Amino acid sequence: MKEAITYELLHVCRQSGARRGVIHTPHGDIQTPIFMPVGTQATVKAMTPEELKDEVHAQIILGNTYHLFLRPGHELIKEAGGLHKFMNWDLPILTDSGGFQVFSLGQAGLRKITEEGVEFRSYLDGSKHYISPEKSIEIQQALGSDIMMCFDECCPYPSDYKYTEKSMEMTTRWAKRCKEAWTNENQGLFGIIQGGFYKDLREKSAKDLIELDFPGYAIGGISVGEPKEEFLDILNYTAPLMPENKPRYLMGVGTPDYLIEAAISGIDMCDCVLPTRIARHGTALTSHGKLVARNAIYERDFSPLDPECDCYTCKNYTRAYIRHLINMKEILGVRLLSIHNLRFLTKLMDRVRIEIENDNLLTFRNEFYKSYGYTN
Amino acid sequence: MKEAITYELLHVCRQSGARRGVIHTPHGDIQTPIFMPVGTQATVKAMTPEELKDEVHAQIILGNTYHLFLRPGHELIKEAGGLHKFMNWDLPILTDSGGFQVFSLGQAGLRKITEEGVEFRSYLDGSKHYISPEKSIEIQQALGSDIMMCFDECCPYPSDYKYTEKSMEMTTRWAKRCKEAWTNENQGLFGIIQGGFYKDLREKSAKDLIELDFPGYAIGGISVGEPKEEFLDILNYTAPLMPENKPRYLMGVGTPDYLIEAAISGIDMCDCVLPTRIARHGTALTSHGKLVARNAIYERDFSPLDPECDCYTCKNYTRAYIRHLINMKEILGVRLLSIHNLRFLTKLMDRVRIEIENDNLLTFRNEFYKSYGYTN
Repeated sequence: MKEAITYELLHVCRQSGARRGVIHTPHGDIQTPIFMPVGTQATVKAMTPEELKDEVHAQIILGNTYHLFLRPGHELIKEAGGLHKFMNWDLPILTDSGGFQVFSLGQAGLRKITEEGVEFRSYLDGSKHYISPEKSIEIQQALGSDIMMCFDECCPYPSDYKYTEKSMEMTTRWAKRCKEAWTNENQGLFGIIQGGFYKDLREKSAKDLIELDFPGYAIGGISVGEPKEEFLDILNYTAPLMPENKPRYLMGVGTPDYLIEAAISGIDMCDCVLPTRIARHGTALTSHGKLVARNAIYERDFSPLDPECDCYTCKNYTRAYIRHLINMKEILGVRLLSIHNLRFLTKLMDRVRIEIENDNLLTFRNEFYKSYGYTN
Repeated sequence: MKEAITYELLHVCRQSGARRGVIHTPHGDIQTPIFMPVGTQATVKAMTPEELKDEVHAQIILGNTYHLFLRPGHELIKEAGGLHKFMNWDLPILTDSGGFQVFSLGQAGLRKITEEGVEFRSYLDGSKHYISPEKSIEIQQALGSDIMMCFDECCPYPSDYKYTEKSMEMTTRWAKRCKEAWTNENQGLFGIIQGGFYKDLREKSAKDLIELDFPGYAIGGISVGEPKEEFLDILNYTAPLMPENKPRYLMGVGTPDYLIEAAISGIDMCDCVLPTRIARHGTALTSHGKLVARNAIYERDFSPLDPECDCYTCKNYTRAYIRHLINMKEILGVRLLSIHNLRFLTKLMDRVRIEIENDNLLTFRNEFYKSYGYTN
C-alpha cells in the first residue's frame, strides 16, 4: 500500500531541537511546524476558502467527524463528492475521529461506552447514535480527508491511574480496529497517544501504537484544563517517544505560547478553535497580547489592531471601526477579527519555521514572550 | 458653486421611455439605472468593500444618517477621515437624512415633531436626541457622503389628505433650510418629493422643490405598504414631474419587479435592505423566483442557487451546502446568500441598462416576469 502521507525532515534547530519539515499529502505539501484552522461544520467559521488561502495563508484545515456525521451526514457529503468539494477547499483536510466530541459533548448519562464503541445522544435533537472505531473510519473515508484520526477516548482532567490505564489500553485496541477498517490508500491514518498525566502510560501507549505502524502520530489528552507545568511536562516527555520519520500532531492547542512550546518539543502540527472563537467574542491576538476590541479605550483609536501585522484587517481597518462593528453585532466585525486572529497564528508559525532554520527558536521564544506579556 | 453631482443622459428607451445615463460624483461615475446596496451601520451587512466591488459590482452604497449619528457618532467618523475612509469604501456613498428612521423607528409617544425638527429617543438605550434639517446636514457633512438627502417626513400609509398636505409643506420648508445649511461643495443634496397618495400634493411638492433647484430629486413615501397598483399609479405620475437633466431616485425599493417598473417610469436610482435582509433569513432571489434555502427539497441538491447566475456563490457552492450552512447558523451561509442576492439585483440592473440601450425594456420585463413567476 502506497503511503498517502509522508514526512520529510528538513532541519533540526540546534538551539531548541524543534523540527522544520514538510508533510506530503494528496492535496499538496504542508510546511511544518504548522497551525491548522478548524472548520467544525464544513466551514472555518465566518471565512471563505479564498480568505483562508490568500489572507490567512492556511495550508491545511480540520473537519469535525462528530459534527459532520450528525449534520449534514457523511453520506450526503460523500454524494457531494467528498468534504473538499462540498466546502470548496482543495488543500489538505484533517478529520478528527469524533471521539473527543462524543466524550466532551455527550451529556452525562446519555453516553454509554463499551469495548465495542460509544452510544450517545445528539446535542442537536437528542436522537440516538453509535460510533465505533469502524464507524469512525467509515465516516472519515466518506468525508475523504487527507489525514484521518483513530477513534480514541480522551480522559477528562483529572482522571485516576486505573481509569486512565484502562482507557488508554482500550484506545490502543480501538486503534488496531481503525487500522483494519481503513481501506482507502489515498488517505492517511494517525494513531493517538493517550495515557493522561502518567508517564509510564504515555510510554506504553506510544510503544503499542508504534508497533501498529501508522503514517503519523498525535498526542491527545493534554491541554484539557491542567496547569501549564503539567502540560509541558507530559508534552516534553511524550513528543520524543514519537517516530522521527513521521508527522507529530499535538491536538487542540492554539495559544501562542503553547504553539511555540509544541514546536520546541518537536511537534509538527497543532489545531484549535481559539482564534475564531475569541474573534466572535470581539477579542484579537496581537504582538502585545490580547486586545478586547469593545473596550472604550479604542473608541477613537484610528490605528490598526496590531501595527506589526500584515493581514487584510490590519491593512485596511482601525480599532475604532472594528469596535463599532463588534458593538453593533455586525458580521463584518467577526470576519475581520477572524481573519486577523488566524493570520496572527499562521504568521507566528511562519516565523517559528524561520527561527528553526536559523537555529534561533529559544531566543525568539523569549523575545516573543516579553513582547506578548507572558511571564516565562 | 460647482456641482458635485451631475447627470448625463445617454439614451431613452424607445419602447419604454426608461433612461440610460451616468451620474458623475466626486468618487466616480455611476451607470444608471442602478440598484444601491444599503450599508446601514457603516457596513453592508456581512460584506467587505472588495466583495461589493469585485463580486457584486456595486457602484454606490448607502449609509444611514440616523444609525451613524447614534453609533458610533458622526463626529467620530469625521475624526476618522469621513465615512469612506472609516469603512474602507472609495466609491460613491449616498446618505439618507435620518428622517425615515426617526419616523419609522421612533416609538409612539417618544417622538415629538415640531416645525423646528424632531425630538426622539434612541432605539438602543432610550437616550434623548434631536434632529432638525440643519442637524441632518451637519451630520451628513461630517460623514462626507457624495449625495446627501434633505430631512423630510415620510407619512405612514394610509394618511389622510390634511395630514399629508401639512407634512408635505413642512418637508418643503425643511428642504429650504437643508439647502441653506449645506456648505460643502464636494457633496450634492437631493430634494425629496412627498405628498403621499394624492397627485395634486405630489405635483405641488415637485414644483416647490424644483424651484429650490437641487442637484437631484427623490420620490419618498411610496413603497410603504400600499398595494402595487397604488405604488405604480403614484410612481408613474410623479417621475415625469422630475427634471430631465438631474438624477431621479426612488427611495426604499428593491424587489425585482419594482426595480424594473421604476426604470420604466424614468427612475435612475433605487436602494433597499431587502437582498441582505432576506439573505440573513436564508432566502435567495433567483431567475425563477425566491428560493428558501433551508427547505428539505434542497438537502441533496448539488446544483447552484441559480444556474443562470455568475456570482461567486453560484460558481462555487451548491444548494445542499448553503442549506447546511443556514441550518447550522454558520456566518458563511449568510455571506454566500448576501453576495448572491446583491449580485442578482445589480446583474438585473446591468441587464436593464442593456435593454434600454436596445429599446427593448418592456419585452424584457414581460419575459422576466414570466420566468420569475410574477403575475403581470
